[in-house]
Amino acid sequence: MLGVGDDCALFSVGTGMQLATSMDLFIEGRHFFSDADAVAVGHKALAVNLSDLAAMGARPLACLLGLSLPSIDHHWLAGFSQGFHALAKAAACPLVGGDTTRSSDGIVISVTVMGEVAADLALRRSAAQPYDDIWITGTLGAPDIALRLLQDRLPANPALLKASRTALEMPLPPWQFAQSLAGVAHAALDISDGLSQDLGHILLASQCGAELDYVSLPIDPCLSGLDLALQQQAVLAGGDVYQLCFTASDQRRHDILQLAQQAGVSVTRVGRITPQVGLRVLDQHGQPIEHVFGGYDHFS
Amino acid sequence: MLGVGDDCALFSVGTGMQLATSMDLFIEGRHFFSDADAVAVGHKALAVNLSDLAAMGARPLACLLGLSLPSIDHHWLAGFSQGFHALAKAAACPLVGGDTTRSSDGIVISVTVMGEVAADLALRRSAAQPYDDIWITGTLGAPDIALRLLQDRLPANPALLKASRTALEMPLPPWQFAQSLAGVAHAALDISDGLSQDLGHILLASQCGAELDYVSLPIDPCLSGLDLALQQQAVLAGGDVYQLCFTASDQRRHDILQLAQQAGVSVTRVGRITPQVGLRVLDQHGQPIEHVFGGYDHFS
Repeated sequence: MLGVGDDCALFSVGTGMQLATSMDLFIEGRHFFSDADAVAVGHKALAVNLSDLAAMGARPLACLLGLSLPSIDHHWLAGFSQGFHALAKAAACPLVGGDTTRSSDGIVISVTVMGEVAADLALRRSAAQPYDDIWITGTLGAPDIALRLLQDRLPANPALLKASRTALEMPLPPWQFAQSLAGVAHAALDISDGLSQDLGHILLASQCGAELDYVSLPIDPCLSGLDLALQQQAVLAGGDVYQLCFTASDQRRHDILQLAQQAGVSVTRVGRITPQVGLRVLDQHGQPIEHVFGGYDHFS
Repeated sequence: MLGVGDDCALFSVGTGMQLATSMDLFIEGRHFFSDADAVAVGHKALAVNLSDLAAMGARPLACLLGLSLPSIDHHWLAGFSQGFHALAKAAACPLVGGDTTRSSDGIVISVTVMGEVAADLALRRSAAQPYDDIWITGTLGAPDIALRLLQDRLPANPALLKASRTALEMPLPPWQFAQSLAGVAHAALDISDGLSQDLGHILLASQCGAELDYVSLPIDPCLSGLDLALQQQAVLAGGDVYQLCFTASDQRRHDILQLAQQAGVSVTRVGRITPQVGLRVLDQHGQPIEHVFGGYDHFS
């Protein structure tokens, strides 16, 4: 599964391109449940890393996998490999090397991805400009609801779990659309810790603020019947989304909608960057929603 | 320590160069003792990866570090960082990103290194040619002796442990000399699993054999008083050396000695590649030593 038969893997980076690289650890009991489907674990271990490449507008080139396992479970390994390789193939991000070893307790997965992006076109967190539109790919909220259900923090609800679980376990970052944003969008990042906290990173790095219109947010349909406070928490503070939040000039609205259509990705314009710092989420009356997400004051 | 403040680290690869990359896991209780000096653990976690770059003749560019820790021990972390960063600085291989997380039990360290090498000059395992000289950098045997002492597989011997321990805990792969071998040597790899087994990888990949002259091997001076069978085991089968074994045309002897002198690295010519397969280690009478290392038949 791993070997390329030499001390290092070798590959080329395009002329004028920079190498973009990221590493994430993926730990049993922390990032996935011990009884999680092995196919989903393999998929997600790579997906969260592809999401980092997407957030830079980089094209995937190759990945490395480190697997530390307490024992050899061939059934688990076969499922893990299936999930990992299917996504690697879909994203044209071949596994070129890595390491496997025996751990004392618990599975530790380490994935490094490498991609390329034109030297001046990488989507940086610090590049948001006042009056930029703020866009989001995909939908928000479902992974957090699935996590709450699996952790018994919500009353059992098989139908809701069924509707939300795929978003948590099989995230599909928009790596292809993201490449087309390089040179079009200004700032970008992936929503891993929750929209309010992650957007906060852009605002801090870009020294500006933002207003989000709650009613325009792409709330996952499975959240429609839920209590409003819970819904707002899941949408604004829920993590594990692995979709993009990006900013772009309002001159680019048409381009962005066209690129999204070409890539088969849904995009939603959800607010705007402001010169004054702080993140404000406005309700349907234009009034700030202040009480639902913890990260608010932190970024004001 | 880790942050570069964006989703990926970005860096450039030289025109006409290929990216060389490798990942190694470094596990508490398996690759290092729980009571090992944290500075040495940080040093070695990077050193074993730099050794992979050296084995390709690649110049280090950057590294990523994944740290999975059961608890935050600031004293340990400070030592680990000191050892890791000192070597990263010496090798001009800056830490550009990574991940830290809480593990259930035991420290798991994941390091990815990236380097560059001219597209056609990488030192591949498959490039050995019949009648090539076989060379080794540094000395052999000391890490294995230190490991045996620390694991109580040899009678306690404080003087011998003192003389051998640095080779085990603070290996210093010849990354600079290795770069100068690209275009000069044919095949190369680093000695991590023991000379006979690692050289066997070159022989298999290159479809040839080798003869080593035992008396010419650079045996570490600390092994001089030991029983011959133990010495031969440590020298031929002892791992954790992280020095280079490489092959080159006999026309290159002068160049290689000069390059080694410039880099301040000791090199020793220890044998030759043969057209017939199999690895033969010859004693001072030219007779094969067959009984001391397990890997022999495996490669014949």
